[in-house]
Amino acid sequence: MISVALVGYGYWGKNLARNFNSISECSLKTIVDSDEQRLASIGKLYPGIKAVKNISDVLNDPAIDAIILATPVFSHYTLAKQALRAGKHVLVEKPMTASVSDALELIDLAQKQRLLLMPDHTFLYTGAVHKMKELIGANEIGAINYYDSNRINLGLFQNDINVVWDLTPHDISILFHLIDERPVSVSATGISHLKNGIENIAYVTLNFQSNMIAHFACSWSSPVKIRQILVGGDRKMILYDDNQVTEKIKVYDTGYSAKSDEERQRILVDYRVGDIYVPKLEMKEALAGMAADFIQAIRTGTEPESDWRSGLDVVKVLEAAQKSIKENGKEVRI
Amino acid sequence: MISVALVGYGYWGKNLARNFNSISECSLKTIVDSDEQRLASIGKLYPGIKAVKNISDVLNDPAIDAIILATPVFSHYTLAKQALRAGKHVLVEKPMTASVSDALELIDLAQKQRLLLMPDHTFLYTGAVHKMKELIGANEIGAINYYDSNRINLGLFQNDINVVWDLTPHDISILFHLIDERPVSVSATGISHLKNGIENIAYVTLNFQSNMIAHFACSWSSPVKIRQILVGGDRKMILYDDNQVTEKIKVYDTGYSAKSDEERQRILVDYRVGDIYVPKLEMKEALAGMAADFIQAIRTGTEPESDWRSGLDVVKVLEAAQKSIKENGKEVRI
Amino acid sequence: MISVALVGYGYWGKNLARNFNSISECSLKTIVDSDEQRLASIGKLYPGIKAVKNISDVLNDPAIDAIILATPVFSHYTLAKQALRAGKHVLVEKPMTASVSDALELIDLAQKQRLLLMPDHTFLYTGAVHKMKELIGANEIGAINYYDSNRINLGLFQNDINVVWDLTPHDISILFHLIDERPVSVSATGISHLKNGIENIAYVTLNFQSNMIAHFACSWSSPVKIRQILVGGDRKMILYDDNQVTEKIKVYDTGYSAKSDEERQRILVDYRVGDIYVPKLEMKEALAGMAADFIQAIRTGTEPESDWRSGLDVVKVLEAAQKSIKENGKEVRI
Amino acid sequence: MISVALVGYGYWGKNLARNFNSISECSLKTIVDSDEQRLASIGKLYPGIKAVKNISDVLNDPAIDAIILATPVFSHYTLAKQALRAGKHVLVEKPMTASVSDALELIDLAQKQRLLLMPDHTFLYTGAVHKMKELIGANEIGAINYYDSNRINLGLFQNDINVVWDLTPHDISILFHLIDERPVSVSATGISHLKNGIENIAYVTLNFQSNMIAHFACSWSSPVKIRQILVGGDRKMILYDDNQVTEKIKVYDTGYSAKSDEERQRILVDYRVGDIYVPKLEMKEALAGMAADFIQAIRTGTEPESDWRSGLDVVKVLEAAQKSIKENGKEVRI
Repeated sequence: MISVALVGYGYWGKNLARNFNSISECSLKTIVDSDEQRLASIGKLYPGIKAVKNISDVLNDPAIDAIILATPVFSHYTLAKQALRAGKHVLVEKPMTASVSDALELIDLAQKQRLLLMPDHTFLYTGAVHKMKELIGANEIGAINYYDSNRINLGLFQNDINVVWDLTPHDISILFHLIDERPVSVSATGISHLKNGIENIAYVTLNFQSNMIAHFACSWSSPVKIRQILVGGDRKMILYDDNQVTEKIKVYDTGYSAKSDEERQRILVDYRVGDIYVPKLEMKEALAGMAADFIQAIRTGTEPESDWRSGLDVVKVLEAAQKSIKENGKEVRI
Repeated sequence: MISVALVGYGYWGKNLARNFNSISECSLKTIVDSDEQRLASIGKLYPGIKAVKNISDVLNDPAIDAIILATPVFSHYTLAKQALRAGKHVLVEKPMTASVSDALELIDLAQKQRLLLMPDHTFLYTGAVHKMKELIGANEIGAINYYDSNRINLGLFQNDINVVWDLTPHDISILFHLIDERPVSVSATGISHLKNGIENIAYVTLNFQSNMIAHFACSWSSPVKIRQILVGGDRKMILYDDNQVTEKIKVYDTGYSAKSDEERQRILVDYRVGDIYVPKLEMKEALAGMAADFIQAIRTGTEPESDWRSGLDVVKVLEAAQKSIKENGKEVRI
Repeated sequence: MISVALVGYGYWGKNLARNFNSISECSLKTIVDSDEQRLASIGKLYPGIKAVKNISDVLNDPAIDAIILATPVFSHYTLAKQALRAGKHVLVEKPMTASVSDALELIDLAQKQRLLLMPDHTFLYTGAVHKMKELIGANEIGAINYYDSNRINLGLFQNDINVVWDLTPHDISILFHLIDERPVSVSATGISHLKNGIENIAYVTLNFQSNMIAHFACSWSSPVKIRQILVGGDRKMILYDDNQVTEKIKVYDTGYSAKSDEERQRILVDYRVGDIYVPKLEMKEALAGMAADFIQAIRTGTEPESDWRSGLDVVKVLEAAQKSIKENGKEVRI
Repeated sequence: MISVALVGYGYWGKNLARNFNSISECSLKTIVDSDEQRLASIGKLYPGIKAVKNISDVLNDPAIDAIILATPVFSHYTLAKQALRAGKHVLVEKPMTASVSDALELIDLAQKQRLLLMPDHTFLYTGAVHKMKELIGANEIGAINYYDSNRINLGLFQNDINVVWDLTPHDISILFHLIDERPVSVSATGISHLKNGIENIAYVTLNFQSNMIAHFACSWSSPVKIRQILVGGDRKMILYDDNQVTEKIKVYDTGYSAKSDEERQRILVDYRVGDIYVPKLEMKEALAGMAADFIQAIRTGTEPESDWRSGLDVVKVLEAAQKSIKENGKEVRI
């Protein structure tokens, strides 16, 4: 039985609490939050869980094996370091840290302490991503030519991070889960419509040594919510529309290659060249899978699907994208 | 009565012929195409129209007032110059020319000859663009903060121009029709999956002096056809989805400004803050409006909606985008 | 403070428990279920609520003011009668009873005992139905000409009731909430693809004295889930698509009347004659509103929105539809 | 070479002219219409085709082999009889006649004269119907359990026929093309919101001896255009949405049978039990296929896909539906 404490009981913290509370090999012992009202609501919903105000209570509690950090990004590094030093395994919300150097320091510390440091890249545990990985692994899609994501909605304007740090970690972690290659550089543009200068719209291109390109459009200022990813291979292409309920993944039998003039004409008129296949996906909650993987990784000493490498890779891209935005799209090497 | 000749009877040329043939103040006298089979089909469908092989036949025909060029982009400059020199008004397909210097030369020549030089930016004549212009003009939308376009499909790989030159002229001309400001620079990225190195996927950002950003995603390699434009103002936002039949334009009563915490929470859950309005649009064919505007401009000496400035502005952006792509996103001043 | 007991802790019972547990003027004291496993799960999630096996425990508990019945339809009459006789207010899942005579007996008993008997027609508490009622009340829609509902999905085949008793109570209660007129007769057809002869697909027409028609298509055997209602008035029409997240209600400025030939031609091509308006709806959970209304009605002695008349009217239509199906569509007077 | 004459140059007549004019084995010689303006427009578009005012001109023209009737339904019987008596093959718009007795008389006359009498059931020539027939023929779908159609839009109110005669011939002919069984009876309801009493909304159920049901909902008074057909088999189900451009046919791997409780629970939550397959369809225009089949049938003496039996079967159902509507849904035997 792994005993865990949760730090931060906001929107996502509540979801984490619910999921960790329902894992049989795990005991959610304590929740930390500085807000009195939230602490009171914990007591009502989970009478068996301690609700405390200071993280020191769990850092110093020898009964706690692991700490889950659902706090703002700027606090990740400090809190994770404290937790690791206190000998606790750490699960930290995405993005893992606010800089590459912070991430490297935490990773180093975790390895020295032989503790698990895991970022919460929840999307890796969705049925949709599992299916994409399976299809790509089985060479159904062929060599991947592009990854194109639109992740836009009318969102909260965060105070500490911009829209790139808020939304693209999902895409970066999914992409790096699907392919082995890592980008050589990043070019990004963006804009802030706010006084604090934090970007609310941004566009990020990842450049690769191979014939591959990735692009993420992200926005907090769209009147419509779009969660649409295209993965194009030279054999087939995938449309992953997360807004769909039962048809999230569509596989198009649509490779593109040199064609005869007649074929080209038909494609122009028709806009499709083959069948579409809509696979059935597993339906379990992704967060439950992530939580179970964290507990399992602690118990068995194995690496979770969402591992520290993934956490580090994400922060590397974010840092480079940030720099490129400040220089109006200039290519930044990773 | 204005007598016109059409050069080029391919896919778009056929549409031009049909529309110009049905304008009462216009007489489509001659169609030029080098393909024997096409010439034969003209005779069958339009027994009253001359079908000839050489453009010199119309250049030298004093009865022809105007020439319509529906030929590949690389030929626009040479053919338009010949036509203007022969004293003919010219309508040329988008993009107007393959370079800014070519465009400037043609514009200069047209002005000296007192002839009309008009690019065919057909989208300016759609009910959707008319409605957007009307809404913005009436200050319904407020100050424009962003223009975001996705124009992707499984398209023909052109041999002479890349996907930027093929698809973004639509967006550039629409955007410049809606707002008065012009961009100060362009940052663009793209990739070619072809041996000839012509980009089939590209992303273009337009940077403005004001608080405005524009972004165009374009692709010939998407399994799905998307024609979706978001125009965000500080009062309302517009979604223009050209794939829709009866609901192409949606107006969201969704400004974004500093909000109370409670309001923010509601937005997070709800993803909408106001009513939506779906205006009825005019239904007439855009190409018919463009053709009528060309004839009308010749007859009255007034400027058409799609004027040479629009043609030039489009080519300026295209040229800068091309340069930026070659430098992996480096900002290129216009 | 009203003390309540819930009988039945299945899928819907869980939702009722959650909602009644969060109303401040209400104390959910006891949950009754015959299943040991479910009883155990109650103890875990709601440590403060008694979980018992026999309904007699709550019938005989003088501290219980009201009983909520989330049990199979065939049990509604017997359990509600017991509860009313024991002096408890009763909330009962839809449909209220399995026959009109049972409903009349319960209503009579409740009135004699001066107790509340309320059917749970949850849809009456949705933002969508509230908005439709508001629009119709403000004469925005005009005289209602038709109500057309498609309520189909791949559903559970119930063992005790057919698809009409399962799905159409939603439509009947919504329709009778929106209009004052009641149908004079019912014509219905249906089929069973099961050995037990219980219909899994059915079509029900309600005939009215006025120029109004209502039709409900319902199915447990559709591969796609559709929840689509059209309400046609002589001024405007409403499309209520419950599958939509943010655009559940669309109001079409589309009356139909005698038109000139030219207008008719335009309609034929265009398929729309006016603007569309998509009002923002309240977002609160309908079930929470229903639960609050039940508690409020007990405390104040007023009638809830979903009252016994609604419960009775629904059962009247169901009984007639059932009879008509058995006679292949023969009109059955109500 | 088959020489044909077209009678009626309205909306559909224009489409017929265009298609018959482009068949190489066919020569469209004459078009008959009583409207002067239409006759003039024929001369302009088809200089080689005679435009005449009286049908007698073509009945008496020995050079005409076949006559196409694109006239109002009430005229079909009289005109077709004249044409057959004059020794012409006849293609007649759907529905073939306004009564079963008329249809039988025409069929008898055609057989005696050894002439082709063919109804234009265009939908039988669509890629979608071809694919459905292929799938059902290959036993991919299993035994057909139901056919459910919604065919509604804001349509013209016809003066001579109601919405059932206008819209359901499509569904009846498609259904009878897909299955061999014919219905034993019809139950239908409907309403007229017009002074002339012609129904603008109607619902038709076809009852079969087997475990099959068919239902058609049709309306001229819907603000939205829906063209959606569900065909449910005991192995798979088909959704045919004619409004879709590239995904008209979806095949759901979704049989329904007795399931374990666990499976039922999953279905309740998930609303899908298998993969979906979206086959690529042929893209050629259905009307071109119909026209070619008519000419081919005349030339070879074979039966067309849309044959007189189909024409007769459709009228049988229409006549019975009409009678049932007048009796508020009473079952009418066929």
